[in-house]
Amino acid sequence: MVLFEEVDLLDVGGPYEVLLTANRLVQRGGDPPPFDLITASLDGKPVTAYGGLGLIPQAATGDVRDVDVVLVPGAVAIDRALEDGRLVGLVRAHSRAGGLVVSVCTGAFFIGAAGLLDGRPFTTHFEDLDALAQRVPAGNPLDSVRWVDDGDLITAGGLSSGIAMALHLVERLAGRPLAEATARQIDYDWTEQR
Amino acid sequence: MVLFEEVDLLDVGGPYEVLLTANRLVQRGGDPPPFDLITASLDGKPVTAYGGLGLIPQAATGDVRDVDVVLVPGAVAIDRALEDGRLVGLVRAHSRAGGLVVSVCTGAFFIGAAGLLDGRPFTTHFEDLDALAQRVPAGNPLDSVRWVDDGDLITAGGLSSGIAMALHLVERLAGRPLAEATARQIDYDWTEQR
Repeated sequence: MVLFEEVDLLDVGGPYEVLLTANRLVQRGGDPPPFDLITASLDGKPVTAYGGLGLIPQAATGDVRDVDVVLVPGAVAIDRALEDGRLVGLVRAHSRAGGLVVSVCTGAFFIGAAGLLDGRPFTTHFEDLDALAQRVPAGNPLDSVRWVDDGDLITAGGLSSGIAMALHLVERLAGRPLAEATARQIDYDWTEQR
Repeated sequence: MVLFEEVDLLDVGGPYEVLLTANRLVQRGGDPPPFDLITASLDGKPVTAYGGLGLIPQAATGDVRDVDVVLVPGAVAIDRALEDGRLVGLVRAHSRAGGLVVSVCTGAFFIGAAGLLDGRPFTTHFEDLDALAQRVPAGNPLDSVRWVDDGDLITAGGLSSGIAMALHLVERLAGRPLAEATARQIDYDWTEQR
């Protein structure tokens, strides 16, 4: 999970808590946790989330090996985050190497800037969908969905949609029963929210 | 908003994002933001959230003045958090001075330990409701609710319930239209989730 300046805390906290909760439920049953979740910034140094809370990542992105999934959260000031092209490059490289890229909210702008949305269905925060669609005219923006799973790209809508999408990720990677148990554990009405 | 070791990130991130989003919507309209949200740990130093992400608070609790609302998030290992009696003392003092105390998830255990739940309706994470009820036998535990607003005490259920409760807090302190606009902005289906 990539952290950067002015990242939205809920975009991080939703999927973070979903994956950790899924781990805990599996561990309760005596099995090893299915997810190895690592938060990382480009240089490994703290970043400040939107609103002023500082976040201390567990690693620098370059120090994390054998990554299966790169999750990019969003930010209100997404264009400032895009100025540093290294995150865009990281997303592009991970995808071209066959990895899964997942975004929450305006995190989809990183994927678009990486040139990965041409010909692909995607979503983002509803207020920003037109802006992203203009940047990737060959893409297929989808409105009124909480997330879009297009194989090696998953894009979620705004903020709390990241919770619903992360539960889908648990289902896809570890099965529906665990996803349902996780939704119940975090008191999330996933059936209605899908 | 009080931070402590092993705090659950979603308990923090949900209400944090709701209140900041409400602020942003009001500012868009040209008015001053209704909420002055400050994250604080007892000594002002960073804490590590459950799962390993570090959080750098904006202040030490003792340095924050004129506090209207104390929000206490929860933790999986709530008993370890209760060992340091200072947070319990802070909650008790704020309540006795007439302030509003709000909890998410097992954050309600701080309120119970402060002796504030006798004769009061409350809730917490569904797995922990019986345990908290045993500690406050004169209290009135409520199951299957997302939050309980009992005037100067508001307690929410597990994790994502903190989002629904925070939207209620926006409604109570700044009006229903802003709460509805905030729910829409964070892509949260508040009507069904109430």
